Amino acid sequence: MINLPQPLVLASRSPQRRAILTQLGIPFTVVEPGYVEVDPPGERPSELVITHAVGKARSVEGPWVLGVDTTVALDGDSLAKPADAAEAGAMLRRLAGRTHTVYSGLCLRCSEAEHVRLAATDVTFRDLTEPEIEWYLGEGEWRGRAGGYAVQGRGAALVTAIAGDYTNVVGLPVAVLVDAFAEAVAPADC
Amino acid sequence: MINLPQPLVLASRSPQRRAILTQLGIPFTVVEPGYVEVDPPGERPSELVITHAVGKARSVEGPWVLGVDTTVALDGDSLAKPADAAEAGAMLRRLAGRTHTVYSGLCLRCSEAEHVRLAATDVTFRDLTEPEIEWYLGEGEWRGRAGGYAVQGRGAALVTAIAGDYTNVVGLPVAVLVDAFAEAVAPADC
Repeated sequence: MINLPQPLVLASRSPQRRAILTQLGIPFTVVEPGYVEVDPPGERPSELVITHAVGKARSVEGPWVLGVDTTVALDGDSLAKPADAAEAGAMLRRLAGRTHTVYSGLCLRCSEAEHVRLAATDVTFRDLTEPEIEWYLGEGEWRGRAGGYAVQGRGAALVTAIAGDYTNVVGLPVAVLVDAFAEAVAPADC
Repeated sequence: MINLPQPLVLASRSPQRRAILTQLGIPFTVVEPGYVEVDPPGERPSELVITHAVGKARSVEGPWVLGVDTTVALDGDSLAKPADAAEAGAMLRRLAGRTHTVYSGLCLRCSEAEHVRLAATDVTFRDLTEPEIEWYLGEGEWRGRAGGYAVQGRGAALVTAIAGDYTNVVGLPVAVLVDAFAEAVAPADC
Protein backbone atom coordinates (compact mmCIF):
# COMPACT_ATOMS: atom_id res chain seq x y z
CA MET A 1 0.00 0.00 0.00
CA ILE A 2 3.01 2.27 0.26
CA ASN A 3 5.15 1.01 -2.58
CA LEU A 4 6.22 2.90 -5.66
CA PRO A 5 7.77 1.30 -8.75
CA GLN A 6 10.88 3.48 -8.43
CA PRO A 7 12.61 5.03 -5.41
CA LEU A 8 11.25 8.24 -4.01
CA VAL A 9 13.18 11.50 -3.82
CA LEU A 10 12.22 13.56 -0.77
CA ALA A 11 12.65 17.25 -1.56
CA SER A 12 13.03 18.41 2.03
CA ARG A 13 15.57 19.37 4.68
CA SER A 14 13.31 18.10 7.47
CA PRO A 15 14.62 15.26 9.68
CA GLN A 16 11.03 14.65 10.84
CA ARG A 17 9.92 13.83 7.29
CA ARG A 18 12.83 11.45 6.85
CA ALA A 19 11.88 9.77 10.13
CA ILE A 20 8.29 9.19 9.02
CA LEU A 21 9.28 7.68 5.65
CA THR A 22 11.71 5.42 7.53
CA GLN A 23 8.95 4.48 10.02
CA LEU A 24 6.78 3.41 7.07
CA GLY A 25 9.58 1.42 5.45
CA ILE A 26 9.49 3.49 2.25
CA PRO A 27 12.86 3.60 0.41
CA PHE A 28 13.90 7.16 -0.42
CA THR A 29 16.77 9.52 -1.05
CA VAL A 30 16.94 13.17 -0.02
CA VAL A 31 17.65 16.19 -2.22
CA GLU A 32 17.40 19.65 -0.72
CA PRO A 33 14.86 21.67 -2.68
CA GLY A 34 16.23 24.50 -4.82
CA TYR A 35 13.17 26.58 -4.11
CA VAL A 36 12.88 29.92 -2.38
CA GLU A 37 9.72 30.22 -0.28
CA VAL A 38 8.07 33.55 -0.99
CA ASP A 39 4.53 33.87 0.33
CA PRO A 40 2.24 35.23 -2.41
CA PRO A 41 0.21 38.09 -0.90
CA GLY A 42 -3.34 37.21 0.06
CA GLU A 43 -2.87 33.44 0.18
CA ARG A 44 -4.30 31.69 3.22
CA PRO A 45 -2.18 29.22 5.23
CA SER A 46 -4.06 26.31 3.59
CA GLU A 47 -3.14 27.70 0.16
CA LEU A 48 0.45 28.65 1.01
CA VAL A 49 1.37 25.08 1.98
CA ILE A 50 0.16 23.80 -1.40
CA THR A 51 2.08 26.53 -3.27
CA HIS A 52 5.30 25.68 -1.42
CA ALA A 53 4.85 21.88 -1.63
CA VAL A 54 4.45 22.11 -5.41
CA GLY A 55 7.39 24.53 -5.64
CA LYS A 56 9.63 22.16 -3.70
CA ALA A 57 8.56 19.12 -5.75
CA ARG A 58 9.23 20.94 -9.05
CA SER A 59 12.68 22.12 -7.93
CA VAL A 60 14.14 18.60 -7.75
CA GLU A 61 14.81 15.99 -10.46
CA GLY A 62 13.72 12.37 -10.11
CA PRO A 63 11.24 9.77 -11.30
CA TRP A 64 9.17 10.34 -8.16
CA VAL A 65 9.61 13.49 -6.12
CA LEU A 66 7.80 14.33 -2.87
CA GLY A 67 7.45 17.96 -1.78
CA VAL A 68 5.78 18.85 1.52
CA ASP A 69 5.21 22.10 3.36
CA THR A 70 3.71 22.49 6.84
CA THR A 71 2.50 25.48 8.79
CA VAL A 72 0.68 26.30 12.01
CA ALA A 73 -2.39 28.50 11.56
CA LEU A 74 -4.23 30.55 14.19
CA ASP A 75 -6.78 33.29 13.57
CA GLY A 76 -5.88 33.23 9.88
CA ASP A 77 -2.19 33.86 10.58
CA SER A 78 0.55 31.44 9.64
CA LEU A 79 3.02 30.89 12.48
CA ALA A 80 6.27 30.04 10.72
CA LYS A 81 9.59 29.05 12.28
CA PRO A 82 10.45 31.51 15.09
CA ALA A 83 13.64 33.56 14.63
CA ASP A 84 14.62 33.41 18.32
CA ALA A 85 13.46 32.26 21.76
CA ALA A 86 11.52 35.47 22.35
CA GLU A 87 9.46 34.94 19.21
CA ALA A 88 8.97 31.26 20.09
CA GLY A 89 7.73 32.29 23.54
CA ALA A 90 5.26 34.74 22.01
CA MET A 91 3.93 31.96 19.75
CA LEU A 92 3.53 29.52 22.66
CA ARG A 93 1.67 32.16 24.71
CA ARG A 94 -0.66 32.65 21.76
CA LEU A 95 -1.25 28.90 21.30
CA ALA A 96 -1.76 28.14 25.02
CA GLY A 97 -5.27 27.09 26.06
CA ARG A 98 -6.54 27.16 22.47
CA THR A 99 -7.00 25.02 19.38
CA HIS A 100 -4.99 25.78 16.25
CA THR A 101 -4.79 24.05 12.88
CA VAL A 102 -1.73 22.45 11.33
CA TYR A 103 -1.81 22.41 7.53
CA SER A 104 0.45 20.40 5.25
CA GLY A 105 0.50 20.63 1.49
CA LEU A 106 1.84 17.54 -0.27
CA CYS A 107 2.87 17.15 -3.90
CA LEU A 108 3.91 13.76 -5.28
CA ARG A 109 5.35 14.54 -8.71
CA CYS A 110 6.06 12.04 -11.44
CA SER A 111 7.43 14.01 -14.39
CA GLU A 112 4.39 16.01 -15.60
CA ALA A 113 1.85 14.31 -13.33
CA GLU A 114 1.39 15.99 -9.94
CA HIS A 115 -0.69 14.41 -7.20
CA VAL A 116 -1.50 17.17 -4.74
CA ARG A 117 -3.14 16.85 -1.33
CA LEU A 118 -3.96 19.03 1.68
CA ALA A 119 -4.07 17.76 5.27
CA ALA A 120 -5.51 19.70 8.21
CA THR A 121 -5.26 18.66 11.87
CA ASP A 122 -6.61 20.55 14.86
CA VAL A 123 -4.28 20.65 17.87
CA THR A 124 -5.42 21.74 21.34
CA PHE A 125 -2.86 23.12 23.78
CA ARG A 126 -3.25 23.02 27.54
CA ASP A 127 -3.17 26.25 29.50
CA LEU A 128 0.49 27.09 30.06
CA THR A 129 2.01 28.95 32.98
CA GLU A 130 5.04 31.19 32.48
CA PRO A 131 7.33 28.63 34.23
CA GLU A 132 6.05 25.95 31.86
CA ILE A 133 6.78 28.15 28.83
CA GLU A 134 10.24 28.95 30.21
CA TRP A 135 10.88 25.23 30.75
CA TYR A 136 9.92 24.45 27.17
CA LEU A 137 11.99 27.30 25.70
CA GLY A 138 14.95 26.10 27.76
CA GLU A 139 14.72 22.69 26.08
CA GLY A 140 15.58 24.44 22.79
CA GLU A 141 13.14 22.38 20.79
CA TRP A 142 11.43 25.42 19.28
CA ARG A 143 14.32 25.92 16.83
CA GLY A 144 13.32 25.31 13.22
CA ARG A 145 9.75 24.32 14.13
CA ALA A 146 6.65 26.02 12.73
CA GLY A 147 4.67 27.42 15.67
CA GLY A 148 7.67 26.99 17.97
CA TYR A 149 6.95 23.44 19.16
CA ALA A 150 7.68 19.80 18.25
CA VAL A 151 4.79 17.45 19.05
CA GLN A 152 7.04 14.39 18.69
CA GLY A 153 9.39 15.69 21.40
CA ARG A 154 8.94 17.46 24.73
CA GLY A 155 6.11 19.34 22.99
CA ALA A 156 3.86 16.32 23.60
CA ALA A 157 3.50 17.70 27.14
CA LEU A 158 1.93 20.90 25.76
CA VAL A 159 -0.87 19.14 23.88
CA THR A 160 -4.11 17.74 25.33
CA ALA A 161 -5.72 16.43 22.14
CA ILE A 162 -5.64 16.45 18.36
CA ALA A 163 -8.31 15.87 15.73
CA GLY A 164 -7.06 14.52 12.43
CA ASP A 165 -3.84 12.94 11.21
CA TYR A 166 -1.09 13.02 13.86
CA THR A 167 1.72 12.56 11.33
CA ASN A 168 0.61 15.82 9.69
CA VAL A 169 1.51 17.65 12.92
CA VAL A 170 4.95 16.03 12.84
CA GLY A 171 5.39 17.26 9.25
CA LEU A 172 4.45 14.51 6.78
CA PRO A 173 0.74 13.58 6.54
CA VAL A 174 0.73 9.83 6.00
CA ALA A 175 -3.01 9.42 5.33
CA VAL A 176 -2.92 11.66 2.24
CA LEU A 177 0.51 10.33 1.24
CA VAL A 178 -0.96 6.81 0.99
CA ASP A 179 -3.85 8.22 -1.06
CA ALA A 180 -1.44 10.03 -3.37
CA PHE A 181 0.64 6.87 -3.84
CA ALA A 182 -2.50 4.90 -4.74
CA GLU A 183 -3.59 7.53 -7.27
CA ALA A 184 -0.09 7.79 -8.72
CA VAL A 185 0.43 4.11 -9.42
CA ALA A 186 -3.16 3.26 -10.42
CA PRO A 187 -2.98 4.36 -14.08
CA ALA A 188 0.74 3.52 -14.34
CA ASP A 189 1.19 6.98 -15.81
CA CYS A 190 4.82 7.15 -14.90
CA MET B 1 5.77 20.66 34.31
CA ILE B 2 6.92 17.05 34.17
CA ASN B 3 9.23 16.89 37.14
CA LEU B 4 8.86 14.75 40.24
CA PRO B 5 10.89 15.20 43.42
CA GLN B 6 12.15 11.60 43.21
CA PRO B 7 12.81 9.30 40.26
CA LEU B 8 9.90 7.47 38.75
CA VAL B 9 9.59 3.69 38.59
CA LEU B 10 7.76 2.51 35.47
CA ALA B 11 5.91 -0.74 36.22
CA SER B 12 5.73 -1.95 32.62
CA ARG B 13 7.34 -4.25 30.09
CA SER B 14 6.39 -1.93 27.21
CA PRO B 15 9.20 -0.42 25.12
CA GLN B 16 6.69 2.14 23.80
CA ARG B 17 6.10 3.51 27.31
CA ARG B 18 9.84 3.77 27.91
CA ALA B 19 10.20 5.63 24.62
CA ILE B 20 7.57 8.22 25.57
CA LEU B 21 9.09 8.92 29.00
CA THR B 22 12.46 9.33 27.28
CA GLN B 23 10.90 11.64 24.68
CA LEU B 24 9.61 13.83 27.53
CA GLY B 25 12.97 13.85 29.32
CA ILE B 26 11.54 12.26 32.48
CA PRO B 27 14.12 10.24 34.47
CA PHE B 28 12.86 6.75 35.30
CA THR B 29 13.78 3.17 36.01
CA VAL B 30 11.85 0.08 34.95
CA VAL B 31 10.57 -2.76 37.13
CA GLU B 32 8.43 -5.46 35.57
CA PRO B 33 5.09 -5.60 37.39
CA GLY B 34 4.45 -8.66 39.54
CA TYR B 35 0.78 -8.57 38.68
CA VAL B 36 -1.31 -11.14 36.88
CA GLU B 37 -3.96 -9.61 34.63
CA VAL B 38 -7.27 -11.33 35.23
CA ASP B 39 -10.27 -9.54 33.73
CA PRO B 40 -13.03 -9.27 36.34
CA PRO B 41 -16.30 -10.44 34.69
CA GLY B 42 -18.62 -7.68 33.56
CA GLU B 43 -16.03 -4.89 33.52
CA ARG B 44 -16.04 -2.68 30.45
CA PRO B 45 -12.79 -1.94 28.56
CA SER B 46 -12.69 1.55 30.15
CA GLU B 47 -12.91 -0.07 33.61
CA LEU B 48 -10.50 -2.94 32.92
CA VAL B 49 -7.63 -0.60 32.04
CA ILE B 50 -8.03 1.21 35.37
CA THR B 51 -8.15 -2.09 37.28
CA HIS B 52 -4.95 -3.30 35.61
CA ALA B 53 -3.11 0.04 35.85
CA VAL B 54 -3.74 0.15 39.60
CA GLY B 55 -2.77 -3.52 39.94
CA LYS B 56 0.52 -2.93 38.14
CA ALA B 57 1.33 0.19 40.19
CA ARG B 58 0.64 -1.62 43.48
CA SER B 59 2.82 -4.61 42.51
CA VAL B 60 6.06 -2.60 42.46
CA GLU B 61 7.98 -0.81 45.23
CA GLY B 62 9.22 2.75 44.90
CA PRO B 63 8.66 6.32 46.01
CA TRP B 64 6.79 7.02 42.76
CA VAL B 65 5.42 4.17 40.67
CA LEU B 66 3.63 4.48 37.35
CA GLY B 67 1.28 1.72 36.18
CA VAL B 68 -0.44 1.92 32.79
CA ASP B 69 -2.72 -0.43 30.89
CA THR B 70 -4.00 0.08 27.34
CA THR B 71 -6.66 -1.67 25.28
CA VAL B 72 -8.45 -1.32 21.97
CA ALA B 73 -12.25 -1.31 22.24
CA LEU B 74 -14.81 -1.95 19.51
CA ASP B 75 -18.49 -2.68 19.95
CA GLY B 76 -17.92 -3.12 23.69
CA ASP B 77 -15.24 -5.78 23.15
CA SER B 78 -11.66 -5.39 24.26
CA LEU B 79 -9.18 -6.42 21.54
CA ALA B 80 -6.13 -7.58 23.46
CA LYS B 81 -2.79 -8.72 22.06
CA PRO B 82 -3.38 -11.27 19.26
CA ALA B 83 -2.01 -14.77 19.82
CA ASP B 84 -0.95 -15.28 16.20
CA ALA B 85 -1.06 -13.73 12.73
CA ALA B 86 -4.49 -15.22 11.99
CA GLU B 87 -6.00 -13.54 15.04
CA ALA B 88 -4.21 -10.29 14.19
CA GLY B 89 -5.66 -10.46 10.67
CA ALA B 90 -9.17 -10.99 12.06
CA MET B 91 -8.73 -7.92 14.30
CA LEU B 92 -7.51 -5.75 11.40
CA ARG B 93 -10.45 -6.85 9.23
CA ARG B 94 -12.77 -5.85 12.06
CA LEU B 95 -11.11 -2.46 12.56
CA ALA B 96 -10.90 -1.59 8.82
CA GLY B 97 -13.08 1.30 7.65
CA ARG B 98 -14.33 2.01 11.16
CA THR B 99 -13.60 4.08 14.26
CA HIS B 100 -12.54 2.33 17.47
CA THR B 101 -11.54 3.68 20.87
CA VAL B 102 -8.19 3.21 22.59
CA TYR B 103 -8.40 3.35 26.38
CA SER B 104 -5.51 3.70 28.80
CA GLY B 105 -5.77 3.56 32.55
CA LEU B 106 -2.97 5.30 34.41
CA CYS B 107 -2.07 5.08 38.09
CA LEU B 108 0.68 7.26 39.58
CA ARG B 109 1.23 5.85 43.06
CA CYS B 110 3.14 7.50 45.87
CA SER B 111 2.95 5.13 48.85
CA GLU B 112 -0.75 5.34 49.87
CA ALA B 113 -1.70 8.14 47.49
CA GLU B 114 -2.88 6.98 44.08
CA HIS B 115 -3.52 9.43 41.26
CA VAL B 116 -5.67 7.63 38.73
CA ARG B 117 -6.67 8.79 35.25
CA LEU B 118 -8.45 7.43 32.18
CA ALA B 119 -7.64 8.47 28.60
CA ALA B 120 -9.81 7.71 25.57
CA THR B 121 -8.83 8.36 21.95
CA ASP B 122 -10.88 7.55 18.86
CA VAL B 123 -8.92 6.07 15.96
CA THR B 124 -10.31 5.81 12.44
CA PHE B 125 -8.92 3.15 10.10
CA ARG B 126 -9.01 3.40 6.32
CA ASP B 127 -10.74 0.70 4.32
CA LEU B 128 -8.22 -2.11 3.91
CA THR B 129 -7.93 -4.53 1.03
CA GLU B 130 -6.78 -8.11 1.64
CA PRO B 131 -3.35 -7.40 0.04
CA GLU B 132 -2.95 -4.44 2.40
CA ILE B 133 -3.79 -6.60 5.42
CA GLU B 134 -1.37 -9.29 4.20
CA TRP B 135 1.34 -6.64 3.73
CA TYR B 136 0.84 -5.39 7.29
CA LEU B 137 0.80 -8.88 8.80
CA GLY B 138 4.00 -9.65 6.91
CA GLU B 139 5.71 -6.73 8.63
CA GLY B 140 5.23 -8.63 11.92
CA GLU B 141 4.36 -5.49 13.83
CA TRP B 142 1.14 -6.96 15.23
CA ARG B 143 3.09 -8.99 17.80
CA GLY B 144 2.47 -7.88 21.37
CA ARG B 145 0.19 -5.01 20.29
CA ALA B 146 -3.39 -4.57 21.52
CA GLY B 147 -5.67 -4.59 18.49
CA GLY B 148 -2.88 -6.02 16.33
CA TYR B 149 -1.36 -2.74 15.15
CA ALA B 150 1.30 -0.19 16.16
CA VAL B 151 0.37 3.38 15.27
CA GLN B 152 3.96 4.57 15.79
CA GLY B 153 5.24 2.11 13.16
CA ARG B 154 4.00 0.88 9.79
CA GLY B 155 0.54 1.02 11.36
CA ALA B 156 0.48 4.77 10.69
CA ALA B 157 -0.44 3.81 7.11
CA LEU B 158 -3.65 2.14 8.36
CA VAL B 159 -4.99 5.23 10.14
CA THR B 160 -6.72 8.21 8.56
CA ALA B 161 -7.43 10.27 11.69
CA ILE B 162 -7.54 10.26 15.46
CA ALA B 163 -9.50 12.33 17.98
CA GLY B 164 -7.85 12.75 21.36
CA ASP B 165 -4.38 12.19 22.76
CA TYR B 166 -2.07 10.48 20.24
CA THR B 167 0.36 9.24 22.90
CA ASN B 168 -2.51 7.27 24.44
CA VAL B 169 -2.70 5.22 21.22
CA VAL B 170 1.04 4.52 21.50
CA GLY B 171 0.52 3.33 25.08
CA LEU B 172 1.23 6.14 27.54
CA PRO B 173 -1.23 9.05 27.63
CA VAL B 174 0.91 12.14 28.21
CA ALA B 175 -1.91 14.66 28.72
CA VAL B 176 -3.30 12.82 31.77
CA LEU B 177 0.22 11.93 32.95
CA VAL B 178 1.06 15.64 33.19
CA ASP B 179 -2.21 16.21 35.09
CA ALA B 180 -1.41 13.35 37.49
CA PHE B 181 2.09 14.74 38.09
CA ALA B 182 0.64 18.18 38.87
CA GLU B 183 -1.87 16.71 41.31
CA ALA B 184 0.72 14.48 42.93
CA VAL B 185 3.27 17.18 43.70
CA ALA B 186 0.80 19.95 44.55
CA PRO B 187 0.14 19.05 48.21
CA ALA B 188 3.64 17.56 48.65
CA ASP B 189 1.91 14.51 50.10
CA CYS B 190 4.83 12.24 49.35
